[in-house]
Amino acid sequence: MGELRRDPVVDRAVIIAKARGKRPKDFVMPKAREEKRACPFCPGNERMTPPAHLVYTMGEEGPVEAEEGKDWLVRCFDNLFPALTPEEGRGHHEVIVESPFHDEHIQRARMEQVRLVVKAYMSRLEELYKKDYVKYVLIFRNYGLEAGASLSHAHSQLIATPFIPTVLREEVEAFRDGCPFCRLIGMEREGGRVFYESVRFVAFCPYASRIPFEFWIAPKRHSPSLTELKEEGAREFAEALRETLGAMSELLGDPPYNYWIHVAPKGMDFHWHVEVLPKTSIWAGFELGSDVYINTMPPETAAKLMREVVSRRAHRTS
Amino acid sequence: MGELRRDPVVDRAVIIAKARGKRPKDFVMPKAREEKRACPFCPGNERMTPPAHLVYTMGEEGPVEAEEGKDWLVRCFDNLFPALTPEEGRGHHEVIVESPFHDEHIQRARMEQVRLVVKAYMSRLEELYKKDYVKYVLIFRNYGLEAGASLSHAHSQLIATPFIPTVLREEVEAFRDGCPFCRLIGMEREGGRVFYESVRFVAFCPYASRIPFEFWIAPKRHSPSLTELKEEGAREFAEALRETLGAMSELLGDPPYNYWIHVAPKGMDFHWHVEVLPKTSIWAGFELGSDVYINTMPPETAAKLMREVVSRRAHRTS
Repeated sequence: MGELRRDPVVDRAVIIAKARGKRPKDFVMPKAREEKRACPFCPGNERMTPPAHLVYTMGEEGPVEAEEGKDWLVRCFDNLFPALTPEEGRGHHEVIVESPFHDEHIQRARMEQVRLVVKAYMSRLEELYKKDYVKYVLIFRNYGLEAGASLSHAHSQLIATPFIPTVLREEVEAFRDGCPFCRLIGMEREGGRVFYESVRFVAFCPYASRIPFEFWIAPKRHSPSLTELKEEGAREFAEALRETLGAMSELLGDPPYNYWIHVAPKGMDFHWHVEVLPKTSIWAGFELGSDVYINTMPPETAAKLMREVVSRRAHRTS
Repeated sequence: MGELRRDPVVDRAVIIAKARGKRPKDFVMPKAREEKRACPFCPGNERMTPPAHLVYTMGEEGPVEAEEGKDWLVRCFDNLFPALTPEEGRGHHEVIVESPFHDEHIQRARMEQVRLVVKAYMSRLEELYKKDYVKYVLIFRNYGLEAGASLSHAHSQLIATPFIPTVLREEVEAFRDGCPFCRLIGMEREGGRVFYESVRFVAFCPYASRIPFEFWIAPKRHSPSLTELKEEGAREFAEALRETLGAMSELLGDPPYNYWIHVAPKGMDFHWHVEVLPKTSIWAGFELGSDVYINTMPPETAAKLMREVVSRRAHRTS
């Protein structure tokens, strides 16, 4: 027990130390109860949030961009308590409400709704990258109180920064000898850690997983950013997102989780991908004080368990 | 709002974004209830844990090292679920039970007991550094379920690794132009962030605090490791530890916290120190996905509040 692994891209250290006799659901702690109060993200409460930057509604031939109104499907606006604000030329902090239905979280959402969320991600990325002072835009999603979601209505967030965040700088540095992610995907496949695959995407539990059931989703072909997706690719990504999150949710019993999307910092080459971290353990004194992670679930085992659920779900819907 | 700061030692990015109208205790979330069961660390249950590496008991003229027995004051043994094990020449994972009393946590412990904990830290560090394959020993303490403490009996842990952990490598790199911590202490003092001071030690809320009420304790004079402390220095360190943790506990209402001690990796120069992180916010998608931290409490304000409590406590005991 206790195998040291290093992430092939950023050299992050992980100790894989298998915990005996734990079932997948044992990794998730009992959830705290949320206080009930009026939801500022629910339809009808639009005045509780800043005005929208982007709204989708249902048009005659499908969803379309629209003005503020009550019949929205997706709605983006500034975070009421922003970490960074445009007034100071420093950045943006936005909320992307993913559905008019409070509880339509991606892992159980209708496909067309996830498709709209992806469309909104792409649109906000494009818009914000046009601003001179924006060097990076991080899109992320917190699900569950324990994963830092202070509001439970289905939503993502983004923070645009006037600098390239640390992790992205480290990932970009690894491009000196070609794309490390193109290599990584082959390595994950050979290692038996891929658990989901479609024409354009793979999902895998990475070799140096930091936490039980961590997984990443990446396009198979080199591509710097999410914004490069065309119609069919975006649909396929939405499906990959929903299916992998859905499988994880089923396997672990709807755990809290965080995900974020890494795309090319402005003007740089990259291979975009999503990193999903379910809240399956608490990083405590050792992890925080060393930046070394102890993971009690070998990613090979996690991938096998995920693969089984993905295949079960595919049979159920076909 | 939203000031970008970088840690002067490791260049870690932090955004200081002041939250309005929050009182110190508002930073701490309601605590989960712990399940009641037999405590393996309480006296009488020694057989529930591996045999001890180190035991202190009360001798005729004060505490002394002793064999296993029921009248111990401090007891160190291997973690029953180790991340790393010596059998594979890879490392050690030990528990340091700090008191026979279940709830004698450092922030409210008797001084002589904290003094014994420090003595145990020093003894285990010395012992483990003697082993060829050990390159680093991280001593850490998790307090509270939310901070990752699975058992509530007062205890610290240590993990000895056959490599130098990432954060330590980064800190050591910063020694190229002299000791960055010697410089840092002057900077923290000038910035009004020091809140506790004794003959040999200072405690301050660092310039680039990652989390509300983060603080560090460091010896004022350059010193590579805790093991260099003599009798009087060790006593003073124990007092600094108890007083600063006590003040934080009083100010924030007994919050969960983690601390760890950074000492010199084997054969290297260093300036040892303790980093204390109360669980005053949850690092979510943004922090995890960017390695950039959003801190809603300016360390200058945190230091001012801590200073008031430290001074109130000093008046109370004198």
